[in-house]
Amino acid sequence: MIGAGDATGGAIARRFAREGYTACVTRRSLDKLQPLLEQIRAEGGTAHGFASDARKEEEVVALVEQIESTLGPIAVLVFNIGANAPSSILDETARKYFKVWEMACFGGFLNGREVAKRMVARTGDGHKGTIIFTGATASLRGGANFAAFAGAKHALRALAQSMARELGPRGIHVAHVVVDGAIDTAFIRDNFPERYAMKDQDGIVNPDHIADSYWMLHSQPRDAWTHELDLRPYMEKF
Amino acid sequence: MIGAGDATGGAIARRFAREGYTACVTRRSLDKLQPLLEQIRAEGGTAHGFASDARKEEEVVALVEQIESTLGPIAVLVFNIGANAPSSILDETARKYFKVWEMACFGGFLNGREVAKRMVARTGDGHKGTIIFTGATASLRGGANFAAFAGAKHALRALAQSMARELGPRGIHVAHVVVDGAIDTAFIRDNFPERYAMKDQDGIVNPDHIADSYWMLHSQPRDAWTHELDLRPYMEKF
Amino acid sequence: MIGAGDATGGAIARRFAREGYTACVTRRSLDKLQPLLEQIRAEGGTAHGFASDARKEEEVVALVEQIESTLGPIAVLVFNIGANAPSSILDETARKYFKVWEMACFGGFLNGREVAKRMVARTGDGHKGTIIFTGATASLRGGANFAAFAGAKHALRALAQSMARELGPRGIHVAHVVVDGAIDTAFIRDNFPERYAMKDQDGIVNPDHIADSYWMLHSQPRDAWTHELDLRPYMEKF
Amino acid sequence: MIGAGDATGGAIARRFAREGYTACVTRRSLDKLQPLLEQIRAEGGTAHGFASDARKEEEVVALVEQIESTLGPIAVLVFNIGANAPSSILDETARKYFKVWEMACFGGFLNGREVAKRMVARTGDGHKGTIIFTGATASLRGGANFAAFAGAKHALRALAQSMARELGPRGIHVAHVVVDGAIDTAFIRDNFPERYAMKDQDGIVNPDHIADSYWMLHSQPRDAWTHELDLRPYMEKF
Repeated sequence: MIGAGDATGGAIARRFAREGYTACVTRRSLDKLQPLLEQIRAEGGTAHGFASDARKEEEVVALVEQIESTLGPIAVLVFNIGANAPSSILDETARKYFKVWEMACFGGFLNGREVAKRMVARTGDGHKGTIIFTGATASLRGGANFAAFAGAKHALRALAQSMARELGPRGIHVAHVVVDGAIDTAFIRDNFPERYAMKDQDGIVNPDHIADSYWMLHSQPRDAWTHELDLRPYMEKF
Repeated sequence: MIGAGDATGGAIARRFAREGYTACVTRRSLDKLQPLLEQIRAEGGTAHGFASDARKEEEVVALVEQIESTLGPIAVLVFNIGANAPSSILDETARKYFKVWEMACFGGFLNGREVAKRMVARTGDGHKGTIIFTGATASLRGGANFAAFAGAKHALRALAQSMARELGPRGIHVAHVVVDGAIDTAFIRDNFPERYAMKDQDGIVNPDHIADSYWMLHSQPRDAWTHELDLRPYMEKF
Repeated sequence: MIGAGDATGGAIARRFAREGYTACVTRRSLDKLQPLLEQIRAEGGTAHGFASDARKEEEVVALVEQIESTLGPIAVLVFNIGANAPSSILDETARKYFKVWEMACFGGFLNGREVAKRMVARTGDGHKGTIIFTGATASLRGGANFAAFAGAKHALRALAQSMARELGPRGIHVAHVVVDGAIDTAFIRDNFPERYAMKDQDGIVNPDHIADSYWMLHSQPRDAWTHELDLRPYMEKF
Repeated sequence: MIGAGDATGGAIARRFAREGYTACVTRRSLDKLQPLLEQIRAEGGTAHGFASDARKEEEVVALVEQIESTLGPIAVLVFNIGANAPSSILDETARKYFKVWEMACFGGFLNGREVAKRMVARTGDGHKGTIIFTGATASLRGGANFAAFAGAKHALRALAQSMARELGPRGIHVAHVVVDGAIDTAFIRDNFPERYAMKDQDGIVNPDHIADSYWMLHSQPRDAWTHELDLRPYMEKF
């Protein structure tokens, strides 16, 4: 399992590790992964951390090769990167517009392609692997000040759909999860305290519950696969 | 749990009965429900059958009242009725166009409204109940010869969305499941034998796997509810 | 041209009459059509009024027969009926839920089918006729208190799509126009005065401008037909 | 008017030139623009050609500055670039995936932002300008072998929506046109002769008819703007 090391990625890694999978988690800096690796191990799981930049083709190719050759075939890829930094279209810089796309979409393409190449090459004709992309409300609609993030997330959704249509019949389960609403993270706690206060009423999403859905998706038998589902708190407007 | 007695409804009723729920299944004729009731009981579950026409307001009102007063509060409603009978728009009769809507949409409105009234009246502020509507590809797009069925299924999806937006904040989980592809039923076996032959390759949907998704939806904690998901065989074009 | 006699329908009838078409306008009561008929005639156009209930199959069949046999082939059908009356799903009556669908969707089916039957029977292989359905924001998404209206409008959109996919290749241009925002009508003026006050800033839709789009749709050559477009004031949130 | 110099861009430039606008057309190489410029002038219009790379920020900024300072305020921007080159996701190169996005989406962002900055700064409170992006079927759904093109086109649509939602209330009409089907171009003639043969039956889109729709969009009064419309031949499956 490859996953990013934020709260959601961490919860997903822990969930799959609890099911007996070896969790491989990546981040640009290895240091920041230590607490997660220790937590997984403390819970009895197996975990490996890798410093890798998901936007660099050579790094992604090398990482996938390294994992497959040393730890075994990758069963599940979770691509979970992408941060929003709203700007008026009038103030948006070319540099940021590009970087948002590079991180939230191009990295998904590189990782998805490399892992898919390995998965289709497996023998047998059953379920050959699962690839899950994390989406957001901006995956479905543009919005004022959201041109960069919505563009990257729309493009990632197009990638997920294109891969599902090509690779589903070849035994790879490609899914896209639209998380709509604030997630219980340090970022929300520190920057949106009013929003965070809704935690008392279950008004923000618990990353462990996102992880449950990812596990459920991976567990679906191939006659009944879900390509897309949404997740939001009961009280979220949509 | 209220559910209809076809293969999908039956599998859902059995699934919830296995989890300890009392399954209440309805159909216009009680006779046809006997095999399902016996099967649930043989599996150690509790089940009740009711002859009721889901399109008749008085019958729906009376049934919900009867179940609530004799068996206790309804925790889950599954509305699962609707049959497609394709016709060119040029040949479509007013009678059939109406009947398809009455069965697949109006019945959903009547059952959904009656059960929702009871659920919102429960005390406490947690998860007050789950209402799940079964959709189809025709919920999302019209097609040649599908005017009646697509109309009814679009309308049912609009009902599910409207109810979710109104009732989610009041603690009721309203979900819509888009089943895309043939289901393993006697109807498909007898009428589409080539399609049915794909069962060997998991090319048609096993009703038990649909039921697993309904159970998963009902089990979601309220900070991470799914409103809509799709289900299809890995080899299905979409 | 068959169209309903409200502000939008009236503006469309006048627009097509200005282009030389004979406007046939219908309403349940003939009296209310007189001002429109007089206006069209005063502008130099030709217009006929018909008392007809769009929800009654016999009346629709008879009306289409009468127009075709006495005035000639119908070139354009505009179906434009449907009124919203918001209710909580908990208070929605079966009677109103049905009536909203009957008026906004079933009437569209009856009129669309009858006119399409005539159009496909025309000789030649060019553009055989245009059928336009008027949609609304509720055609695209359900909302709290909108279950009935959204259901009817979703079903009408499914009808338009199904007809377009079947009848486009046979030379009939079927289109769906999503009007998003308040229209400049007596109803808005009397019931939503604050909204109506935005007229000074072009914040509500002028029915004549809707009519321009309908004329444009009918004028499109068959190699470049539009199936769906939206119309809203520049300042409308969407 | 800024537009690209392929068949569709050329037809749009000629259409606006016929209405009295000064057509400014751009392409990476000026030579290829000469036939178009001569054609517009032969038809009595005014046209200027600019060699410019739509993906280079400095070039776009300089071009918009040059046009505004020498020819006057830009009334309409049409962004019309983007070519599809299908590949299996397994064979897609990082270089091509990036280039498809850079051309079809990033160029739209750069041009759209620069022109929008100028438009919002105009005095007065009426319609301050029109920005139209050309979309495709891949704007709406991903497909096998279409990951790169669908990604770029989804992202461009997200840009159009985000700009419309931010800039509509400020008087800029932002629209997105989904062209679905083959266009009558040398590329289709040379590469898809069977498809091109459908021209006899109006089965491929005439660029002049696309241009008519762009002119119509620019002409809409601000109380009734269209954000999105589709265009396809009557016989096209959709």
